[in-house]
Amino acid sequence: MSTQNGPRKVEAIFAATLDLLAEHGYEKLAIEAVAARSGVNKTTLYRWWPSKDALLAAALRESGLFALDVPDTGGLRGDLLAVATQIHRLLTSEHTAPVVTATLTAGPRRPELGEVSRSFFADRLAREEPIFDRAVTRGELRSGVDPVVVMDLLAGAIWFRLLLRGGEGGPKFLEEAVDTVLNGAA
Amino acid sequence: MSTQNGPRKVEAIFAATLDLLAEHGYEKLAIEAVAARSGVNKTTLYRWWPSKDALLAAALRESGLFALDVPDTGGLRGDLLAVATQIHRLLTSEHTAPVVTATLTAGPRRPELGEVSRSFFADRLAREEPIFDRAVTRGELRSGVDPVVVMDLLAGAIWFRLLLRGGEGGPKFLEEAVDTVLNGAA
Repeated sequence: MSTQNGPRKVEAIFAATLDLLAEHGYEKLAIEAVAARSGVNKTTLYRWWPSKDALLAAALRESGLFALDVPDTGGLRGDLLAVATQIHRLLTSEHTAPVVTATLTAGPRRPELGEVSRSFFADRLAREEPIFDRAVTRGELRSGVDPVVVMDLLAGAIWFRLLLRGGEGGPKFLEEAVDTVLNGAA
Repeated sequence: MSTQNGPRKVEAIFAATLDLLAEHGYEKLAIEAVAARSGVNKTTLYRWWPSKDALLAAALRESGLFALDVPDTGGLRGDLLAVATQIHRLLTSEHTAPVVTATLTAGPRRPELGEVSRSFFADRLAREEPIFDRAVTRGELRSGVDPVVVMDLLAGAIWFRLLLRGGEGGPKFLEEAVDTVLNGAA
């Protein structure tokens, strides 16, 4: 399966990369270990991806791990609650949480991962747009409110509470967050 | 200046720890380098703090780097905008941003740092309480709205936008975030 986008066994390489990341965390992810697990020579890996971050960025881009099902429940509240529930799952499921936290919070010291993170969130925002377009059509979004700010507030609250504050983030919290964003605190 | 809470030169040790963190990032922070810069034997450091994370946690706890000035502008909107501006500064100032991002996003793999992070945010929340108490007295907070959720939304939006999405986060964004939280999107 040699292609212009990677060496033979590229799927096995990406799978090994993400599995090792989930198992051992970002610090301990090593190209040597990816080579061993995927049965590919490490010089081959280095030829295609000059660094661990470049390999990880490619693996994440190709993986369906972060896929978003854009909901259409017939109302803005239901749609936002469905999106919030997906974000919550992404941050708590044992399959995605280690990968998500290790990569999307990579920060400015790892430019290639930072780029993956930014393009991931830009893609999500683009796919969430129809939710807000429908809400505008239905008259559910107050004029002048920026959907991007709404998503920053909602997604931000979930990330912040679960990953930074270490707080409880069950269904009740998700409903409260959605209702506070929609109805306001004042 | 030998005390029960640390060896002699504890202030120099903590300062060296945070300076090295800001200069080189978490990965490259090494107890040996802290020892060299603070002029303390590394065995002394290991006697007091068994790991890099333990030393870092202590340094952060004692530092005034993350201090919060609790605003009292006379209104909830002004108070939230002042808090939002402080969070924004914490995440963008060259003195605090590297330390904040390296430590508060430490995640579940570094339990000692995770504990620092959680106690930091718990302390902030406790100090923000008077803002909401005054707002309730003034009738500015809708009944049933949880101040913790309001802070998760507002702080979360700023963290999420600046650190994860890599978006613009200037004064206009802070005002929009505060106004959307207060007035609602619907």
